[in-house]
Amino acid sequence: MQIIHSPKDMHSLSKLLRISDRSIGFVPTMGALHEGHISLIKRSKKENDITVVSIYVNPLQFGPDEDLEKYPRQKEKDIEMLSSLEVDTVFIPADGEMYGKNDTVSIYIGATGKKLCGTSRPGHFDGVATVVAKLFNIVMPDRAYFGQKDLQQTVIIKKMVKELNYGIEIMVSPVKRENDGLAMSSRNIYLTEAERKAAPVLYNTLKHGKKLILSESPGNPANIKNELEAMLNAEPFVNIDYVDILDPESLEGVNKIELPIAICLAAAVGKTRLIDNMIIDKES
Amino acid sequence: MQIIHSPKDMHSLSKLLRISDRSIGFVPTMGALHEGHISLIKRSKKENDITVVSIYVNPLQFGPDEDLEKYPRQKEKDIEMLSSLEVDTVFIPADGEMYGKNDTVSIYIGATGKKLCGTSRPGHFDGVATVVAKLFNIVMPDRAYFGQKDLQQTVIIKKMVKELNYGIEIMVSPVKRENDGLAMSSRNIYLTEAERKAAPVLYNTLKHGKKLILSESPGNPANIKNELEAMLNAEPFVNIDYVDILDPESLEGVNKIELPIAICLAAAVGKTRLIDNMIIDKES
Repeated sequence: MQIIHSPKDMHSLSKLLRISDRSIGFVPTMGALHEGHISLIKRSKKENDITVVSIYVNPLQFGPDEDLEKYPRQKEKDIEMLSSLEVDTVFIPADGEMYGKNDTVSIYIGATGKKLCGTSRPGHFDGVATVVAKLFNIVMPDRAYFGQKDLQQTVIIKKMVKELNYGIEIMVSPVKRENDGLAMSSRNIYLTEAERKAAPVLYNTLKHGKKLILSESPGNPANIKNELEAMLNAEPFVNIDYVDILDPESLEGVNKIELPIAICLAAAVGKTRLIDNMIIDKES
Repeated sequence: MQIIHSPKDMHSLSKLLRISDRSIGFVPTMGALHEGHISLIKRSKKENDITVVSIYVNPLQFGPDEDLEKYPRQKEKDIEMLSSLEVDTVFIPADGEMYGKNDTVSIYIGATGKKLCGTSRPGHFDGVATVVAKLFNIVMPDRAYFGQKDLQQTVIIKKMVKELNYGIEIMVSPVKRENDGLAMSSRNIYLTEAERKAAPVLYNTLKHGKKLILSESPGNPANIKNELEAMLNAEPFVNIDYVDILDPESLEGVNKIELPIAICLAAAVGKTRLIDNMIIDKES
């Protein structure tokens, strides 16, 4: 397994790989790898000749009051895990290599980046899109892999890829969950024991929403949303950021229940902000 | 010579060219080709295995009161010219192929795009950067060619390429001029006979600025700027947009005369807005 730190070296390698006609699968991560990442990496290895994984905690997507400094970093453990998965190349750029101090160029996403998580995290998705555009230009993958846990992120990356004509396939894999249903996230380690016990209420709320939506008379989205909010509010550790019922492709709100449909939610569990979602379709 | 209209087909061709290890030189144009474009194309042909020229009048870089509708279009003549130059591929996308009606993603440049021409043309350079990013993603060139006539554009494209990690070399060629010094531009055909006679005052002003800057006691930039403005104002057809003396790399204003230095100007000649510039260096 090759570990590359310089964007220039990574780009040169990708150019060589393209000349040799090998397909590149790319899994961008912020490290602190868990089963969710592993499922993306395994899928990339199946679908491509070469798999590149990046580890980079992107400062541009963190707000001034967010957890950039304390975001979990476990480089050695991550590298060991990637090595045992037989990843071909790990790209670990240093901050100084990714952004210059006078940098001002960024990707602007528009309204899709300003709703849901974008409301409480202004600039977050423009920051995500900018680093992903940079990584795409450096790695030049054929396919890039993202987890559905960050549904809004996957919608935004697909939108960017389509509108800026990146010839890259965006592959989205299902949410990986702990045994009690909590969506896997690098941020779960922030939870105290009591919060961790309370946290599955997010998944249970989504499951309850699914049941309502698939029932014979689901009613309207606003009523379901109210019922789900009440369920979350009943849990003392939970502080809702949003619960929404949406079109899963556009993330636009819907007036009536028509499949496929997405339930998206974000909430603080104690001091830790967690997100989760479920896409409900005919076969689901 | 191959003419391609679909971004998808263009991207597929570029992918094949990369696999075959042939270097791609790219000359993005808005058509209405003149000697300036031809010099870029000839240079690209010398420096690359394959030369791709695009013709696309990008609506995103025109303001609501600008000349998008009447911008000169001469597709047949352009294609004939490109064919005689033995260009390999011409990419002529239709508007509907380049932008969807719900598109919102764009490149944001920052302050460098808001000064000089950006003052009277708000959003212009973000629009330029966005279409160039799209074209770069479609064509995937090794080198891209621009004329120094649009100095601010070249600075902005270089900035975007550097900050978004495009592995593309930006090649800038000198301004091509008519015999009387007027910088070649597709917009010169808008000029009436009398305006055309007056227009070389732009170049003559730059030459006078160069003489002042290279003189033994050039004084300070503000004084030189005043003298150049007076020279332009003496010509009744001319209405100054800006005259500025700048660092040619950053386009930041300068307080004293130190080489290399750029004089940039924009002015309406009659109703036609023209720009020109000169970079003055030790060997110039």
